[in-house]
Amino acid sequence: MDILEAIRTRRSIRKFEDRAVPRETLERVLRAAMAAPSAKDEQPWRFIAVTDRATVRKVAAFHPGAEAAKQATAGVLVCHDPALEQIEGYWVQDHAAATQNILLSAHALGLGACWIGGHPIVAFEKGFRELFGLPESLVPVAFVAMGYPAETLPARDTYRAERVSWVG
Amino acid sequence: MDILEAIRTRRSIRKFEDRAVPRETLERVLRAAMAAPSAKDEQPWRFIAVTDRATVRKVAAFHPGAEAAKQATAGVLVCHDPALEQIEGYWVQDHAAATQNILLSAHALGLGACWIGGHPIVAFEKGFRELFGLPESLVPVAFVAMGYPAETLPARDTYRAERVSWVG
Repeated sequence: MDILEAIRTRRSIRKFEDRAVPRETLERVLRAAMAAPSAKDEQPWRFIAVTDRATVRKVAAFHPGAEAAKQATAGVLVCHDPALEQIEGYWVQDHAAATQNILLSAHALGLGACWIGGHPIVAFEKGFRELFGLPESLVPVAFVAMGYPAETLPARDTYRAERVSWVG
Repeated sequence: MDILEAIRTRRSIRKFEDRAVPRETLERVLRAAMAAPSAKDEQPWRFIAVTDRATVRKVAAFHPGAEAAKQATAGVLVCHDPALEQIEGYWVQDHAAATQNILLSAHALGLGACWIGGHPIVAFEKGFRELFGLPESLVPVAFVAMGYPAETLPARDTYRAERVSWVG
């Protein structure tokens, strides 16, 4: 899939087929995640890759924004490991860039995906830590619920010329 | 350009040809930026698009991490507008996702690009605010220096299996 087309047509998907996502497909998504840039190239990430749909469903039990987790059959939790940090201040952005790569690569591989927030909402961080048995030191930044889409959403035109100021 | 290929081959580019980037090309990049997901779909962004290379160069005057701005001929400053915010906590991630779309779309359009940090380092925020005459209310989150690349960097393999824990 063409990159500009992928960016243009990606939508948040919340309805999924009852069909497992192969581990190999998730590995391609994780490869895309780890290709994201990071401040000082520190790559401060760790991932929990979930192919067990019952576990994915449990995200919806503690997270009001996790409608997508009710039908999703797979997921990736993007975590920050402060032990891998070399520069302060930019790790949230590093993980968001990796998460965006997850969304785009999932779309390209025929999956639907929805970004579900973790950090900095403490209740969501706690929910993810408990569900996945994470140590206190890891920060769950974002969860991406995934699966084969059971809904087709049209591309949106979100360009707003008035949001841009030109210099030059 | 294929999306997975774009994600895999994108590198931070810091050497550029002395060649202007057409405004139409920057508009395509901005369109990609605005197609990023955001919490509650609030799209809390404003952009400064720079095609004046003398202005881009001035970023390097106050920012030690802005080597790329010395030769870049264009740039985009991604700003947060709190007046557009509907939900607290996630705006940094919204802007980072938009910035990642800028990097990928620039790469697809034959440009090189490099992410230069703004928020939360106060000195960098101040530098961007002064250079572009921004109101105090806007938060400069990231600047992407861009241009036609004068260096070719090979794709890297950044996948690390040991960073992934599998559930299921």
